[in-house]
Amino acid sequence: MLDVAVAEARAGLAEGGIPIGAALFASDGTLLGRGHNRRVQDGDPSMHAETAAFRAAGRQRDYRKTIMVTTLSPCWYCSGLVRQFGIGAVLVGEAQTFSGGHDWLAEHGVEVTVLGDERCVGLMTDFVAARPELWFEDIGEVP
Amino acid sequence: MLDVAVAEARAGLAEGGIPIGAALFASDGTLLGRGHNRRVQDGDPSMHAETAAFRAAGRQRDYRKTIMVTTLSPCWYCSGLVRQFGIGAVLVGEAQTFSGGHDWLAEHGVEVTVLGDERCVGLMTDFVAARPELWFEDIGEVP
Repeated sequence: MLDVAVAEARAGLAEGGIPIGAALFASDGTLLGRGHNRRVQDGDPSMHAETAAFRAAGRQRDYRKTIMVTTLSPCWYCSGLVRQFGIGAVLVGEAQTFSGGHDWLAEHGVEVTVLGDERCVGLMTDFVAARPELWFEDIGEVP
Repeated sequence: MLDVAVAEARAGLAEGGIPIGAALFASDGTLLGRGHNRRVQDGDPSMHAETAAFRAAGRQRDYRKTIMVTTLSPCWYCSGLVRQFGIGAVLVGEAQTFSGGHDWLAEHGVEVTVLGDERCVGLMTDFVAARPELWFEDIGEVP
């Protein structure tokens, strides 16, 4: 499932955007929605990877058995999304280059798995080194 | 400032949507963005009132002196937005019909003001009574 999120992150990078991708799956592995960060592409600060995947999945009535897969630890905005909608599980590609609210989600009953995927680490390490101002803008950090 | 959010909520209701409105202001009172819940109108579960107002404000570099005004206590998704982007203050129309993460935001340094605005209470009380299934869908509650 992480491959889909990585493909989204790479697509975002190829578009000149921030390389974070995500996908929402049903418990049987059916892909419900996929997306990537669109701050640069659409000038839209509300479209983080996770919110883009959630949006692409359309209106759902019950998220309890869904799995949010993301290349990077979800920020508070995206962690809040997971908690509010009762998404049952989160699979995180890596939490080394940024650590958001995944521990908070685990405390609130979400099944959280954090991998140390080298593709994900590489994408963000390279991007933050190349475009730090864009990355800090994306997480609301003021220099 | 709450009048703008109430006008947004009423516009959403007139469109057949969920009557929650929000607006993001600069510290000097300049309106940066305004919006309302668009779940029904756009089939978009990611557009809560606060995220719509945030999106409408476009890319901003520093939210610390901005004020998010919303007709209803922000859910975890929208509270996470406020925390991640460092929005300095939140003005809540009412928290009687729904209470989200505004106390959590206050604990994390956000200046939170909760009013008991009768227009806001009336909009949500009437809506939840008329369309409970839509309201519960909007906050991810499964019957």
